[in-house]
Amino acid sequence: MKIAVDAMGGDNAPSALVEGAILAYRELGIESILIGNPEKIDAEFVRLGARGLPIEIREATQVIEMGESPSRSLRSKTDSSMRVAAELVKSGDAEAVFSAGDTGGAFAVSLHVLQRMKGVLRPAIAALIPTLKGFSIMLDVGANLVPKPQNLFQFGVMGKIYSEIALGIPNPTVGLLNVGGEESKGTDSLKSAYQLFSKSDLNFMGNVEGNTIFQGSVDVIVCDGFSGNVAIKVSESLSEMLTTLLREEVTHSVRSKIGYMFLQNGLKSMRQRTDYSEYGAAPLLGLNGLTMIGHGRSESKTVKNALRATSRLMDKGLNSKIQDQVDKQISIQRRSEPGWRLWGQIREGIFHGGSADESSESGGSSGENDSNLTKN
Amino acid sequence: MKIAVDAMGGDNAPSALVEGAILAYRELGIESILIGNPEKIDAEFVRLGARGLPIEIREATQVIEMGESPSRSLRSKTDSSMRVAAELVKSGDAEAVFSAGDTGGAFAVSLHVLQRMKGVLRPAIAALIPTLKGFSIMLDVGANLVPKPQNLFQFGVMGKIYSEIALGIPNPTVGLLNVGGEESKGTDSLKSAYQLFSKSDLNFMGNVEGNTIFQGSVDVIVCDGFSGNVAIKVSESLSEMLTTLLREEVTHSVRSKIGYMFLQNGLKSMRQRTDYSEYGAAPLLGLNGLTMIGHGRSESKTVKNALRATSRLMDKGLNSKIQDQVDKQISIQRRSEPGWRLWGQIREGIFHGGSADESSESGGSSGENDSNLTKN
Repeated sequence: MKIAVDAMGGDNAPSALVEGAILAYRELGIESILIGNPEKIDAEFVRLGARGLPIEIREATQVIEMGESPSRSLRSKTDSSMRVAAELVKSGDAEAVFSAGDTGGAFAVSLHVLQRMKGVLRPAIAALIPTLKGFSIMLDVGANLVPKPQNLFQFGVMGKIYSEIALGIPNPTVGLLNVGGEESKGTDSLKSAYQLFSKSDLNFMGNVEGNTIFQGSVDVIVCDGFSGNVAIKVSESLSEMLTTLLREEVTHSVRSKIGYMFLQNGLKSMRQRTDYSEYGAAPLLGLNGLTMIGHGRSESKTVKNALRATSRLMDKGLNSKIQDQVDKQISIQRRSEPGWRLWGQIREGIFHGGSADESSESGGSSGENDSNLTKN
Repeated sequence: MKIAVDAMGGDNAPSALVEGAILAYRELGIESILIGNPEKIDAEFVRLGARGLPIEIREATQVIEMGESPSRSLRSKTDSSMRVAAELVKSGDAEAVFSAGDTGGAFAVSLHVLQRMKGVLRPAIAALIPTLKGFSIMLDVGANLVPKPQNLFQFGVMGKIYSEIALGIPNPTVGLLNVGGEESKGTDSLKSAYQLFSKSDLNFMGNVEGNTIFQGSVDVIVCDGFSGNVAIKVSESLSEMLTTLLREEVTHSVRSKIGYMFLQNGLKSMRQRTDYSEYGAAPLLGLNGLTMIGHGRSESKTVKNALRATSRLMDKGLNSKIQDQVDKQISIQRRSEPGWRLWGQIREGIFHGGSADESSESGGSSGENDSNLTKN
């Protein structure tokens, strides 16, 4: 089991990526394949005295730059490090990809190469949010700007599994990010999604407003990729502002400087409690293969943590569990459709014993099934 | 010039509202009319020894509750304190409304009673955001969940004037909240809005991402009401979490407690720099009359500040300046439409001297003009 590491993506590439992969091997025994410019990667091995370690290098001649148009890089950069990494997962040479490169590019390439998991309409990017109660998961945070109700529902399904596996939360609570708590609030798409969640067997808590998120009101926050992206970036911006202001205040007076010295441990502990770099990366959920996207500023330690997180998710069978849950929810939804209910009753009448559950699991092609779902 | 105060709206109604109005009169000479239950309001006057002050009381028998459906309260509560307050502005007995009640209710009532300003397609709620550089304005933060490009553009126009008047910023910069900086990013609606801004004479800085907002990257942040609402509520939630965590750390150890004592002044100064309660309320921009919405938790001092802010905005002619700017932008947009350009040329050819500017200002009914705009 190896992780394909896009060695050329991110602000600190390739050094942080190579060093992170070496740390992951030395400290955790995690094997990886580094993809990119072989000379540059090799130079890092020399620098770190790591030549001879069983870490493969594969050449890729191109790099997807930050902010590049994802569709253009998909067309014109068929030998990018991200692309070659995804191909390694497709061919079975690796089990997951890690990239600290451009999120849009990594998403477009992963979707193109790995393709959607059967039954999944839209993959999503899931982010971890530190809260007063621990961590919550927010998805989507950027892949789907205007998702349909069924997409939002599937984000909840995938988020539930990710929460269970990554954070060990049993039967995580799921909420829909909205501008008000009442069922009637929000866009038409959110109202329809609310209904889909209500009819499912997920632990659905209804709508959640932005002002309850960091209180840990729910374990999984489902949202469209636009507001999810805004939410996490605004939070990042606010934290940075508060840090800057605190630093300014501390340098203003001796009194404050003394206070800061005494409070330092407390502030450090605060940072640790809200630090999600141990998880190191955000997964793209819903693809045939796992892609983990790290922060562009990732340093070697963050990369190492991300590779550990990736390795754990694979060990625990994230993708097969998502697939099971997606299948299960599709089957629940189909049972509740009038046509399927009737068929179940007829079938039961004829065969005296086939349960509605069995009938829906076995009947209908998956193609029909997909098209049913996309109607929503 | 009086302000109609919805005395029954908000968590601390009527006491905070009545006391705030009394403070505003005693300290600042601001006159107001308190609307609601006369007995309850009078009891507050007695409590505060303020009977005899020239502050009017008007009866309203109903109250719009928090979270109530705005459309239902509009239909069924025709004698609500908010409704009566808005009617006072319409009749000219007051010049502005202040309410700390339900935002949705205040918005629906204001729109219904005061109506949109000529040329304004959708009013917006504008919020103040503390930044490293001072304050920025974000709009819309909840009135329009799915605005059209022309709506977004008008939010920018109104936000510019509000920024100039409330914060004294000359020629404020305007940015579109988006998931990436490039022109090609975001929803179709945002891409079209980008074009409208680019063609205008506003000080447009392009797209801004959530992670630059608290750095004060632009003075006016234009966004849809859904993500704007999420952004300000998530920020509120994050601040609360950090405050709670800090409090927990401080009570954990004597060392931290000492540090906190020394740092207290610094933290207080930080709070002051990020405190927007001096502004006390968020205006609904784009109506024939000014409605200011305060936080539900507003206390008397916040109410007083809000009434001062409201009074200043009226003194400086907020609404007439918005009207002028809206008219100006409509005229610029019409000039750039092919039909209008041609007409300008023909006119110039015929009259040898009429400038394109004059021609577009004088030609066409405002009805035509409105319908042109709504097409976007």
